[in-house]
Amino acid sequence: MKLLILAGLLAGCLAQKPTPCKSPPFLTGSLTISTQNENLFAYAKYEYDSIGQRIRLRELGTYENKTFSYDVLLLYREASMYEIHRHNRSCTKRPLKGDFHPMVIPKDASLLGQVILGSSSGPGQGLLVNTWTGDLPNKAGKFLRTVTEFGCVPVSSLFRTKNFGWMALSYFNNVIGIVDPAQLDPPSYCQDAEVKAGDEEPVDFTSLFQKL
Amino acid sequence: MKLLILAGLLAGCLAQKPTPCKSPPFLTGSLTISTQNENLFAYAKYEYDSIGQRIRLRELGTYENKTFSYDVLLLYREASMYEIHRHNRSCTKRPLKGDFHPMVIPKDASLLGQVILGSSSGPGQGLLVNTWTGDLPNKAGKFLRTVTEFGCVPVSSLFRTKNFGWMALSYFNNVIGIVDPAQLDPPSYCQDAEVKAGDEEPVDFTSLFQKL
Repeated sequence: MKLLILAGLLAGCLAQKPTPCKSPPFLTGSLTISTQNENLFAYAKYEYDSIGQRIRLRELGTYENKTFSYDVLLLYREASMYEIHRHNRSCTKRPLKGDFHPMVIPKDASLLGQVILGSSSGPGQGLLVNTWTGDLPNKAGKFLRTVTEFGCVPVSSLFRTKNFGWMALSYFNNVIGIVDPAQLDPPSYCQDAEVKAGDEEPVDFTSLFQKL
Repeated sequence: MKLLILAGLLAGCLAQKPTPCKSPPFLTGSLTISTQNENLFAYAKYEYDSIGQRIRLRELGTYENKTFSYDVLLLYREASMYEIHRHNRSCTKRPLKGDFHPMVIPKDASLLGQVILGSSSGPGQGLLVNTWTGDLPNKAGKFLRTVTEFGCVPVSSLFRTKNFGWMALSYFNNVIGIVDPAQLDPPSYCQDAEVKAGDEEPVDFTSLFQKL
């Protein structure tokens, strides 16, 4: 009888449909950014803090065949962003418009499918992931997002941009937590940063790449 | 002392650099095909037998905004391919030129990096993969290929094509082995298949998609 109940429970668990999920509040990792028109390719390290609404991105990439580096700290709570120039220890501070959008699969997203990347034939050979499609905030377009079934860790993200066509983000080497919290505070030499006010457009995680 | 040796051995194992590898001889799974110019998108189930040099592909996709289905069996040993039309139980047989290219990372490929897809922070959250770049057979161009560290199971493959720009293959739900061996034999109604001989170009796994 006990075995039957156990089997029933197990079947219930296995039969559970994937549900929209929230990524861990703190994440540190790397990502690559590539675009359909090949204008932009970048490799970035990131820190993500959805409680403090802070994102740090340190990018190295090529844009129109020229290499660039870009180091930016987004502080949504205080509505400001810092462009950090480590080579000469200077900063540019800008107003940050737009809301913080946590890494979530929105409740109204549609499940495209649950699959195993790699293989389920041996240990360490596969990763169970869910792929979702839905609408970007502010009707900015569609997204296609893949996250791990266990932990809701981002794997990849695809969305259409104005300037580049489709843009693909691939996340890797993610760890749950902030490895170096100092990366999420403005460096000491940013205290007296030159402030570039402006009537610029709102900056969010997506438009950051689009505006490059 | 024993502990030291053990620790030394463990460190040795962990420090091992990824080496070019051969995928399992038998694989069954699914893949998606997408192209940079968005002309072609397809979902396919595949069987792969590198011992018998046989590949079966059953595709469903869109090409220039029209849906298509394509069911093909490639028999390299007997240098023939069958296009299978299940709906009316008929076949078209064609000569298959070109050599069978097993799924391998060639020995002269360069390691781009070893990363964890997802996260290493929890069980079932991550997948250790190696990404390699190198030259396609017959100087057909460059490839970028990602396989699992354990098992050398294909995860994704990117290469440049004549007609579509970059083409991306994503493999998933792979199992080691051939789930249904009958899929790798011509159906009974193909015995007297009409043979379309021709001075066509060689067909290989890659050009199959390019020719669509």
